[in-house]
Amino acid sequence: MLIATPQSMHFADALSLQSGASIRAYDLSYETYGTLNADKSNAVLICHALNASHHVAGVYADQPKSEGWWDTMIGPGKSVDTNQFFVIGVNNLGSCFGSTGPMQNNPDTDKIYGADFPVVTVEDWVDAQARLLDALGIQTLAAVMGGSLGGMQALSWTLQYPDRVKHAVVVASAPNLTAENIAFNEVARRAIVTDPDFCAGHYAAHGVLPKRGLRIARMIGHITYLSNDVMNDKFGRQLRAISKAHASGYQFSTQDVEFQIESYLRYQGDKFSEYFDANTYLLITRALDYFDPAAQFKGDLSAALAKTTAKFLLVSFTTDWRFAPARSREIVKALLDNQIDVSYAEIDAPHGHDAFLLDDARYMGVVRSYFQSKVAS
Amino acid sequence: MLIATPQSMHFADALSLQSGASIRAYDLSYETYGTLNADKSNAVLICHALNASHHVAGVYADQPKSEGWWDTMIGPGKSVDTNQFFVIGVNNLGSCFGSTGPMQNNPDTDKIYGADFPVVTVEDWVDAQARLLDALGIQTLAAVMGGSLGGMQALSWTLQYPDRVKHAVVVASAPNLTAENIAFNEVARRAIVTDPDFCAGHYAAHGVLPKRGLRIARMIGHITYLSNDVMNDKFGRQLRAISKAHASGYQFSTQDVEFQIESYLRYQGDKFSEYFDANTYLLITRALDYFDPAAQFKGDLSAALAKTTAKFLLVSFTTDWRFAPARSREIVKALLDNQIDVSYAEIDAPHGHDAFLLDDARYMGVVRSYFQSKVAS
Repeated sequence: MLIATPQSMHFADALSLQSGASIRAYDLSYETYGTLNADKSNAVLICHALNASHHVAGVYADQPKSEGWWDTMIGPGKSVDTNQFFVIGVNNLGSCFGSTGPMQNNPDTDKIYGADFPVVTVEDWVDAQARLLDALGIQTLAAVMGGSLGGMQALSWTLQYPDRVKHAVVVASAPNLTAENIAFNEVARRAIVTDPDFCAGHYAAHGVLPKRGLRIARMIGHITYLSNDVMNDKFGRQLRAISKAHASGYQFSTQDVEFQIESYLRYQGDKFSEYFDANTYLLITRALDYFDPAAQFKGDLSAALAKTTAKFLLVSFTTDWRFAPARSREIVKALLDNQIDVSYAEIDAPHGHDAFLLDDARYMGVVRSYFQSKVAS
Repeated sequence: MLIATPQSMHFADALSLQSGASIRAYDLSYETYGTLNADKSNAVLICHALNASHHVAGVYADQPKSEGWWDTMIGPGKSVDTNQFFVIGVNNLGSCFGSTGPMQNNPDTDKIYGADFPVVTVEDWVDAQARLLDALGIQTLAAVMGGSLGGMQALSWTLQYPDRVKHAVVVASAPNLTAENIAFNEVARRAIVTDPDFCAGHYAAHGVLPKRGLRIARMIGHITYLSNDVMNDKFGRQLRAISKAHASGYQFSTQDVEFQIESYLRYQGDKFSEYFDANTYLLITRALDYFDPAAQFKGDLSAALAKTTAKFLLVSFTTDWRFAPARSREIVKALLDNQIDVSYAEIDAPHGHDAFLLDDARYMGVVRSYFQSKVAS
């Protein structure tokens, strides 16, 4: 088993952000797997989505169940083979897993940032990741890869640093959010912001946590990660044992859990509210909302992608209604309009958006084959 | 213009509920339009969905903008023609528009019911509606009609009182909720119940209202009423003027409104939280969750509908993902399995679930034609 070791890099120079603000100094948590080769040509950067981190693959020593979030994909002999590639996972600025974010101290005030942490965008994250590569002595990435919001970062890399990326692997992603995507993000944010324990984002200073809001936000998110089909297959209208024990089949209660799906969602919400930071949730959903490389080109994605020189693999999943296959096809079309070398796989998977995190033979095969036949060559 | 007059009927006898509880005495608010004919054979009962009421058609005197919620459908010369039919709208038990519900006094305690109002089901509502018909001297309905949750009531009428219904018109409905439907209801309920101002459902006694929770509940609901297409057409990624005025195109704020869709949803949530009762929201979403006539028949809907003798019109809308056409087709198939006379129209409309409340020439034409050729004959 791959043993992962979290590391941290300090950046003393201020980073200018897209908003016009800047971060004076910051740290990024990261992990690496495999060995950088002599000519530094085998580096693969993995970008994370909403609630993940730099812990992409392997486990921590003495924590056998601490698998990284993309451990099915990445490791020795896996689709992204760490015997061959030097893989880097990095926690984004504003996140809550070690990189500088709202839970940490603001050097300007010597108080916890909280809501004062500046708004960060996909483009800002890519800039920060590029500095990490500089520090690691890596000029050019063999590949940059990510799913969902991570796929947006991979796409943005090819626009911000076209000469530093040979391949981009963009999984279950989209060129921007739809109105419905933004709407779900906004409801989640409102649930957090209107929780009385949010305290205008300075809950840490008040010694409270807006767990109510985070629970609701996660429950909403979770529904959008699953397909209708997989929800029906896994839960359907199954009742909890306590409900089934009632002669009439229900407890007849508006507040107690009757259905298994309710129990599952409450559990997911509770678990999430224990470890995730509310301000980070706001920041990361906003980064999703804002990403829209075509905006500067009057909505013309083909024009926006004209400066891309990387080769691409795009993967989508048939039952993903959050970032539906049609959204990946928009990117494929825009790349083809620019005569970019692009491979595209639409995987027939029942799991909805979550499929990008799951083990699926065809999906893993497509990525393996791309890395072997294209990235490694 | 049809002038509507709200009425109220008192029922002194206790009503036994499906849960085993009972309501000692209760009132139902209702309205009628048109004239009951001599043999009382032209009555049409309209059942309402989550947030609607007995005010189905027409306007109140001196309130020109107070159109009933199905005024596009029902009135003199309309698809359900009140020159021909005696149409009855009734507010369901547990609702908050005049019928006995959680905001009213509990005669057992002389305090406001609040969370003590008993759980009511679609079947309970139909029983209560049947008593209203008794009181109005109507034995048999020419038709019972409803959309969404109202369609479930119409379907249930044909099972609970098969000899009292000649026609059932079931619009944008389903034979039960899917896991995803229940999941959305549960998130909305959790938002309400975990609002500190919910006070375990006795907010009235504490002089507060759980508006935060209601806002979130309504925002979630609203997303599921609209189609992805209509959201993109109406809002897309349009920014508010204040955002567009920024040089960088955004305000870069996690809490301020940037996108028009956010503004729209906040407005809908605010408006709803001003007039709708939180306990009613819990009760009505639970009634939706519980409805499942096939449950007693091991999930066999055809067996469940065997006792139906009414003729049916079912209508669904192509972009409705809350109660998708496939759910209506399940009902159509089960009726056909029982050799029931059923007409079915799948209307190509962009508006999602909301389409059932909107004016659409084909939709209105289908209903008009059914009432003229089938119900009136």
